[in-house]
Amino acid sequence: MPETAAVIDLLGALAYGELSAFDHLADDAGLAPSLAGRTQMSALAAEEFAHYRQLAERLTDLGARPEDAMAPFVAALETYHSLTKPVTWLESVVKAYVGYGLAGDFYREVAGLVDDDTGRLIKDVLSDAGRAEFAVREVEAAVAAQPAVAGRLALFGRRLVGEAISQTQHVLADRDSLMLLLVEGTGDLAGVSALITRITDRHAERMAALGLDS
Amino acid sequence: MPETAAVIDLLGALAYGELSAFDHLADDAGLAPSLAGRTQMSALAAEEFAHYRQLAERLTDLGARPEDAMAPFVAALETYHSLTKPVTWLESVVKAYVGYGLAGDFYREVAGLVDDDTGRLIKDVLSDAGRAEFAVREVEAAVAAQPAVAGRLALFGRRLVGEAISQTQHVLADRDSLMLLLVEGTGDLAGVSALITRITDRHAERMAALGLDS
Repeated sequence: MPETAAVIDLLGALAYGELSAFDHLADDAGLAPSLAGRTQMSALAAEEFAHYRQLAERLTDLGARPEDAMAPFVAALETYHSLTKPVTWLESVVKAYVGYGLAGDFYREVAGLVDDDTGRLIKDVLSDAGRAEFAVREVEAAVAAQPAVAGRLALFGRRLVGEAISQTQHVLADRDSLMLLLVEGTGDLAGVSALITRITDRHAERMAALGLDS
Repeated sequence: MPETAAVIDLLGALAYGELSAFDHLADDAGLAPSLAGRTQMSALAAEEFAHYRQLAERLTDLGARPEDAMAPFVAALETYHSLTKPVTWLESVVKAYVGYGLAGDFYREVAGLVDDDTGRLIKDVLSDAGRAEFAVREVEAAVAAQPAVAGRLALFGRRLVGEAISQTQHVLADRDSLMLLLVEGTGDLAGVSALITRITDRHAERMAALGLDS
């Protein structure tokens, strides 16, 4: 079983992930072409905040201050968000589905490496019910109306996966506890590599669901 | 009993009020000097979204599309927000307490003029539990550290009440159903005037609770 330090790091990273997702989704809702789209994106943001709250409570139960647990991960996550800031509504939709999907896959993998209670909580807060449907509907309609959009969105999808991997590597290089958790949990570096392959495969599936190249 | 049109207008205005409050509070959370402050402001935003959702459901039950019901009130509310945009964390705190308090008082007055179910829903979504405590703590600490801050925040408070009244007047001039509801509900123009006095009195109490002149 991993040390408490690794669990607190993990929950801290995930908590800041949810809090920053709330912040950026709420902001991206302003790109919506209609009030209906705006409320759907705002609903995703509010959902992330509810997840943040569950994680913060858990951190408090473990004796950690949520602010302290999140602090080491603020820079990496804000860098990810600033390098993948959507400039169109469709990019925000792709990010809401594909970006958060990537993060979800990563955390779900890690959830298998920690104690059962923590693992269950992590799986709980990563539900992305309804998100695929919403994204597929918006992207399909846009690509049907204007096929040239597909190429730009495919590029944006590649940026999402590239920056996600790059920032995850920065975090792991900085946090020995998380690196150990990942390497020992998956067995060895070959295990880590298999994990990355599973995550990028699922990324390709999501892009395909949107009708986009990955 | 007022016409359904007036009830739908009222719920539409309140729903957009909550949705725009969500949006602007989420944005203002970025002004927080600490992660703890940021999460508190974000929690207020998430709460507003939950209220929006209750109002949207009610509109749907009454056979109205929430987007259509909200549309007539978007311009007035966005004008209010753009003219009262906080530029400091303390202004955002004062707005979260005083601005939303003003809106709450107005809607609570109107809640007495409509059918019981609608009135109950309106009172439900206007709970501001905990908001005063949070605002008083932040403002008192800031004024103690830097007394000059009090004058600027008092001015900002006056802007909040001025713009709130001005935008409410614009809306009422535009929506006969709401104007009638208010005038007939309170009895006559003297009744409306008494209502405005009650609201500005409560505004003065809130400013006093913050230790600020009104």
